[in-house]
Amino acid sequence: MTTAALVEQINKKQSFLCIGLDTDLDKIPPHLLEEEDPIFAFNKAIIDATHHLCVAYKPNTAFYEAYGIKGWRALEKTIEYLNTNHPSIFTIADAKRGDIGNTSTRYAKAFFEDLEFDSVTIAPYMGKDSVEPFLAFKNKHTILLALTSNQGAYDYQTKMVGEKELYKTVIETSQTYANAENLMYVVGATKASYLSEIRELVPNSFLLVPGIGAQGGSLAEVCKYGMNSHVGLLINSSRGIIYTSNNSDFAEAAAASAKKIQMLMAEELGKLK
Amino acid sequence: MTTAALVEQINKKQSFLCIGLDTDLDKIPPHLLEEEDPIFAFNKAIIDATHHLCVAYKPNTAFYEAYGIKGWRALEKTIEYLNTNHPSIFTIADAKRGDIGNTSTRYAKAFFEDLEFDSVTIAPYMGKDSVEPFLAFKNKHTILLALTSNQGAYDYQTKMVGEKELYKTVIETSQTYANAENLMYVVGATKASYLSEIRELVPNSFLLVPGIGAQGGSLAEVCKYGMNSHVGLLINSSRGIIYTSNNSDFAEAAAASAKKIQMLMAEELGKLK
Repeated sequence: MTTAALVEQINKKQSFLCIGLDTDLDKIPPHLLEEEDPIFAFNKAIIDATHHLCVAYKPNTAFYEAYGIKGWRALEKTIEYLNTNHPSIFTIADAKRGDIGNTSTRYAKAFFEDLEFDSVTIAPYMGKDSVEPFLAFKNKHTILLALTSNQGAYDYQTKMVGEKELYKTVIETSQTYANAENLMYVVGATKASYLSEIRELVPNSFLLVPGIGAQGGSLAEVCKYGMNSHVGLLINSSRGIIYTSNNSDFAEAAAASAKKIQMLMAEELGKLK
Repeated sequence: MTTAALVEQINKKQSFLCIGLDTDLDKIPPHLLEEEDPIFAFNKAIIDATHHLCVAYKPNTAFYEAYGIKGWRALEKTIEYLNTNHPSIFTIADAKRGDIGNTSTRYAKAFFEDLEFDSVTIAPYMGKDSVEPFLAFKNKHTILLALTSNQGAYDYQTKMVGEKELYKTVIETSQTYANAENLMYVVGATKASYLSEIRELVPNSFLLVPGIGAQGGSLAEVCKYGMNSHVGLLINSSRGIIYTSNNSDFAEAAAASAKKIQMLMAEELGKLK
């Protein structure tokens, strides 16, 4: 998917919401456990109920790998369901991969070609030749971890490298990589005030902002500091939406939670005009 | 597996060789493609021919994920074959994972409990709460990326954070994590001279050294700077061993390549006494 098509969807749906499909057999409504594939059954119901309120879905691969082959099959079915029924939705494999050159190419093929995700999250630690193999895919997007929303972000990401923090070094250096126009960045919403400085470095890049909901973080603050003229934000909520209810009404309840966020987003988009 | 059991194996086999199972359908002998599971058939033959010459196997998960469910099944069969037939072999899931707290726990369960690997490689960028969930598993080992052997290592890893390089900061900081005794580190062999400084920081930790073979790096140099009194090294070779021959003799040829390295390792171990 092109960035322009993503922006078009945002304007059409008045939403820049990404729903995280962190599907956990211990947390989904117990009646679904009787289904042949409970993970996919849950995802399908959530997608059916919320696809008009969001522009992206983000399965975190850890939740699928944890169930082995059964989990991978559910991931395959989920992305295939999305690509078949909702081709205008932006899909993110939250995989946080990163490896050396030819091995990164393997991961890129797995996520971009076999599973046909629009994007994948990547860890920056191994540098240029671990990231560029992903950037080489046209109309596919590489979402680089810059500043994450967890406590451990202060271990390395915010440490000063010369005169600036490591996460800024990552953003600046990655902008010199081949096909850098295919880069987006993960920036945790718990550090909204950092967003204005990040915007100076990458005025045009999309930022994927986790941390609304379970991890805290305010939508209005994120928009104030992070929005650009073509929006430039995807804000993720996972548990705060998909686990709103644990009963037979779970999908409608998730839609209600998503709707609340979408309405706030429509307000923020109104300020752009 | 305990570290003591690993050291015992090293002394018994006179080897600290790790064989990387980066199994690629484009590179394995063509006659294997007729097998029902060519990846597993290749791995099994390599393991049968080389298990007495090495102390560890390291499948890189990218090569398995690239083939979707078929690949995951081959990975499952490979680790099960190793654990059943060669329980004294140390197994490494070269996955380079890393995510936030509860998500890291998912990955840890996937690799340590479901697949029953002895260890997994982890990227440090997200810090303490992304690493500690792995460290919590008893007699399981977390192999943290410190200094990798690719060109991109110079993008961030060798940058100065205050008065020392980022990779040293990663090593020092990670030593303060809970259950740090379960940490090992990836240190690329192309930078052997860096090993002596790393040894000052972590005199007792095992180092996993990729880069012998395809990525260059000299065994004698690595041992000179990196070995400690209980060896403390696992040296990996992947393509240099497993793709020695592309014909029906591929397993014997791989064993011959492994034997050459094992004999050099026996020499180095002799110097320890």
